[in-house]
Amino acid sequence: MTRDLHHTATGVLLPWADLDRRYGPWPDGVEVHVWDGVMPGTEPAADVLARMGLWVMPYAVPGADRLLPRLPRLRAVQSLSAGVEKLAPLLPAGVALHNGRGLHDASTAEHALGLILAAQRDLPQWVADQTAGRWNPHFTRSLADSRVTILGYGSIGAALEQRLLACEAEVVRVARRARPEQGVHAVADLPRLLPQTDIVVLVLPENPGTVGLFGPKELAALPDGALVVNVGRGRTLDTEALLAETRGGRLRAALDVTDPEPLPADHPLRHAPGVLITPHVGGGSAAFRPRAERLIVDQVRRFAEGQPLRNAFSRG
Amino acid sequence: MTRDLHHTATGVLLPWADLDRRYGPWPDGVEVHVWDGVMPGTEPAADVLARMGLWVMPYAVPGADRLLPRLPRLRAVQSLSAGVEKLAPLLPAGVALHNGRGLHDASTAEHALGLILAAQRDLPQWVADQTAGRWNPHFTRSLADSRVTILGYGSIGAALEQRLLACEAEVVRVARRARPEQGVHAVADLPRLLPQTDIVVLVLPENPGTVGLFGPKELAALPDGALVVNVGRGRTLDTEALLAETRGGRLRAALDVTDPEPLPADHPLRHAPGVLITPHVGGGSAAFRPRAERLIVDQVRRFAEGQPLRNAFSRG
Repeated sequence: MTRDLHHTATGVLLPWADLDRRYGPWPDGVEVHVWDGVMPGTEPAADVLARMGLWVMPYAVPGADRLLPRLPRLRAVQSLSAGVEKLAPLLPAGVALHNGRGLHDASTAEHALGLILAAQRDLPQWVADQTAGRWNPHFTRSLADSRVTILGYGSIGAALEQRLLACEAEVVRVARRARPEQGVHAVADLPRLLPQTDIVVLVLPENPGTVGLFGPKELAALPDGALVVNVGRGRTLDTEALLAETRGGRLRAALDVTDPEPLPADHPLRHAPGVLITPHVGGGSAAFRPRAERLIVDQVRRFAEGQPLRNAFSRG
Repeated sequence: MTRDLHHTATGVLLPWADLDRRYGPWPDGVEVHVWDGVMPGTEPAADVLARMGLWVMPYAVPGADRLLPRLPRLRAVQSLSAGVEKLAPLLPAGVALHNGRGLHDASTAEHALGLILAAQRDLPQWVADQTAGRWNPHFTRSLADSRVTILGYGSIGAALEQRLLACEAEVVRVARRARPEQGVHAVADLPRLLPQTDIVVLVLPENPGTVGLFGPKELAALPDGALVVNVGRGRTLDTEALLAETRGGRLRAALDVTDPEPLPADHPLRHAPGVLITPHVGGGSAAFRPRAERLIVDQVRRFAEGQPLRNAFSRG
């Protein structure tokens, strides 16, 4: 490590202005600058950048990492994304990385719940009936009393579980590895769990162990009429197998992520019966910003006080 | 009262068979018969009907009350509907009436939640995009952090509140009369509450005091972009005033009940921007049946033990 710790940079570069107006003044001795990452040529001057010790990167702005070489005294980076696998190798040694774990939980869990309710209560049918001039009520399924298996039980899964329990559903937790002390089953238990499942929700990240994890065998183990929800990553669910199971109406699906993505205009999944698709918008709601702002304000306070920041990402 | 209590009828007439298979044997001494109310000529014989002391009426079967004159020793009627105002005057004096209060709470609250999530997360847009071949993600509103005013706070409102709180929304309770000890505001407080409301949910019954209760003044008091949800009765919300506020996009709406109902095929509400309509299906889901079954089983037990039945309806 060659960084000179005697000249600790106390500057903070944030993606949004005016947080102090809503959350109270910044701590003494912290120099705050703002860069939204969008417009070229709007970066702060080199002498300002040289004083920045903490950078909160603009959210979902491709290429914002171009600023990294111009931040010579950087000690910590805060990303607002949950997944920082691609960012991590770009950081110089000695720069700590912090991810946006938890910031998207409320938004994604809420969207998963919306997809489940839309599917159980036949909302796409009512939307079509509305403009077609029909008024044909019929009895529907419900979420209440349903058994929901959450596959990839983590912080989003916990946020979803809280919502499902309030809806009088039953929740079964599954993760890659069993955590018996938390009542979490292992993926290896799926053959036993899936036949008793009304709704399975995939909240899996994409990695070599999860691609295609939910395939023909898992789908076949679900009972007739079961609902498959995916709010994780598209490639964890086998699209061809899902098409085969939904074509005849045996299973239903509600997908916020697909494989491929974007889903081509002529993809058969778009017209498969009982399949509802949204364009990867689980995290993209107003629920994100206030949670991100509260994290930023807390991280700046910790940074000023020399405390460890939250959400440290281990770079192996 | 001329009924002969020395010859207490211990028979029970139920709308569904086989409840004892799932909930355990019927109490000793209770004679159970089944009539679903649908097919003419399927009524039990006169001597059986003469032994019936409790009748659980078939749910939502028009004309089932034709059996009343043929039940000479009836002591109690259980309706599975929440509203029994029209049934009450048909019962002979001395026959106790019990309503279906609570049976529809989970289903209706769940549907209200589904409507709110669909509206906040732009689900009708995604449904249209799916079949049109589009993949155009955009940021949406959220339910999390929203302030939801429940107008007509009762058992459905409480069931909805539980779901909303789990979704990290804030809830404001309003009823006809204030109940300060339960934190319930009065309708008279609406002028102060509505400007701070993101989502207002109407769960009002229809009576002379509620028809048109939510009119031009109440709608005008809502902030731009607010969502008006109705899962109570259509006539409590002023349709013309709602059309005026939604036409230009100032307010949005999600309605399970309308005025008139059914909504005519050419009604302008069907094509109003930001308006989502379902055909009065809030209570019509699989969540109803198990709750109704559990009530029936409990009422039969109480009937056999000579205890007071639940959900007594006062016939004034």
